[in-house]
Amino acid sequence: MSKLIKDVLLKYFDSKILQRLEDAAELSKPKDKLAFTTDSYVVDPIFFPGGDIGKLAICGTINDLAMKGAIPKYLSFALIIEEGLAFSDLEKILKSAAHAARTAGVSVVCGDTKVVEKGKADKIFITTSGVGVIKRDLGKEKIRAGDRVMISGTIGDHGIAIMNERLKLGLEFNVKSDVAALHSLARKILEAGSGVHFMRDPTRGGVVSVLNEAVDGTGFGIMIDECALPIKKQVRGASEILGLDPLYIANEGKLIAIVDRKDATSILKKTKSHPFGRNAAIIGEVFREPKGVWLRTKIGGTHPLLQLEAEGLPRIC
Amino acid sequence: MSKLIKDVLLKYFDSKILQRLEDAAELSKPKDKLAFTTDSYVVDPIFFPGGDIGKLAICGTINDLAMKGAIPKYLSFALIIEEGLAFSDLEKILKSAAHAARTAGVSVVCGDTKVVEKGKADKIFITTSGVGVIKRDLGKEKIRAGDRVMISGTIGDHGIAIMNERLKLGLEFNVKSDVAALHSLARKILEAGSGVHFMRDPTRGGVVSVLNEAVDGTGFGIMIDECALPIKKQVRGASEILGLDPLYIANEGKLIAIVDRKDATSILKKTKSHPFGRNAAIIGEVFREPKGVWLRTKIGGTHPLLQLEAEGLPRIC
Repeated sequence: MSKLIKDVLLKYFDSKILQRLEDAAELSKPKDKLAFTTDSYVVDPIFFPGGDIGKLAICGTINDLAMKGAIPKYLSFALIIEEGLAFSDLEKILKSAAHAARTAGVSVVCGDTKVVEKGKADKIFITTSGVGVIKRDLGKEKIRAGDRVMISGTIGDHGIAIMNERLKLGLEFNVKSDVAALHSLARKILEAGSGVHFMRDPTRGGVVSVLNEAVDGTGFGIMIDECALPIKKQVRGASEILGLDPLYIANEGKLIAIVDRKDATSILKKTKSHPFGRNAAIIGEVFREPKGVWLRTKIGGTHPLLQLEAEGLPRIC
Repeated sequence: MSKLIKDVLLKYFDSKILQRLEDAAELSKPKDKLAFTTDSYVVDPIFFPGGDIGKLAICGTINDLAMKGAIPKYLSFALIIEEGLAFSDLEKILKSAAHAARTAGVSVVCGDTKVVEKGKADKIFITTSGVGVIKRDLGKEKIRAGDRVMISGTIGDHGIAIMNERLKLGLEFNVKSDVAALHSLARKILEAGSGVHFMRDPTRGGVVSVLNEAVDGTGFGIMIDECALPIKKQVRGASEILGLDPLYIANEGKLIAIVDRKDATSILKKTKSHPFGRNAAIIGEVFREPKGVWLRTKIGGTHPLLQLEAEGLPRIC
């Protein structure tokens, strides 16, 4: 184990703090309030079009910090490995994770590795935690009637890519997971002014889940316009085959921002100028009534977008 | 899942920050440098004499922060649950974890829950990360020749308790895991003065592993005195039966401190006055020569205590 850690982990994660191999990392004294987050990643399959569990674990935690208005600074990286995982797969995952962290300018400063017997886990699980410095206070309490709802790009790519791979649907289409670190896009959006009230990445549970959480307890409602939703033709097609609504499908490289009406156009423009925001769109609006989350359909009707109690597809992330 | 989180997790973990159920927790601006750590817990069995995986996950991360000279402040708590885990077991584990956190005065501020299919994990895995405020700079670079090596209590209790339970050895003895949060003991030791140079809890790999890490790269060696080692008679007996050396067996509620010779007596006294330090003992000394870690046996010989490359027993924590 110690050989594994020293040889492979340290080969890819080259932060000086991590190289000390202490049980706890020392972080410099921060100048601002901190954000702290954690997620376990159990995605199946561990390699999928557009990414792998390593990249996902790094980007997911970066995104949770970025959505909180924070600059991601430090990550932890804990592995649970099933005995028999091919060493080449482990190395591929670590390389990919390290590349994602480096690209994002975030240091992996502490980690852990546990190995369990064959049949007691599924190849590899990764838990990342992250610490970031909060630059802007965002939150549902800032949401107001008239605010616009923006999404930074196409909906449902990650979930459909995973399902096509896992269920061996054999759909011959070129949909990749959108897994990406959104901190630079988030920073760009925040720089557009003080009009950003709330940000969240619509992962497990999809867009509907985030919107329901956004208005829950605020007394406001959100109306989404079906015509405005950016959804790839192939994702729409696959969703129909599977009997799923893309609004409930997981994304891993998209963010939803709820923004002041007067700043919506400039924020959308800023977003579209970023590589991860090219397909951004204003998709809805915050209302006093009706409460809850609603879809205005193409033919002009409305129906409620209810939070699902059950998980759509397990192990999507 | 969201029902599970809301009903059960929030019932036990009652931090106001966690109750916001955001993707990232907001921490107040700290006054000092921070310590950051992570560990995954995969212990088998999940319930054992003296504790369970929940208590272990909380205490283990608290201890990693405390050994770094930090006051533990915030924890994250991420669950990977195997489908079919008895709900009553989950609740017992959460209750125990929450109790351990509350007793230690540490807030669980963020978390995550993933469920995987039956046969794809082993009941439950928990990954905790922790953030603490560093109050004292400790580290191997402070170690000097003449320093004394102290252990805070009996050696090998956790490992032997787990092995007896897991391997169904049926040894009829009353050895419990020593799992405990050591932050208050660590604080007491640090209050004894500036003579504390290095602290570490001898978990996986045991006492030998920590001592080897302590001197690795420093140019010093450590000589341990076999006669001075506090080991319970039952642990010694079980170790003999299993062909194991207690110095390599995991502990979860003990710390090793390497301290200035002139402060050793007062630090030992302080340690003994704490409930978790009653059986503390000075067990060795730092030398210029020989390098490495050595045992002076009862009959006066010496032999090297080498770092093991392979893990003694998997899933001990």
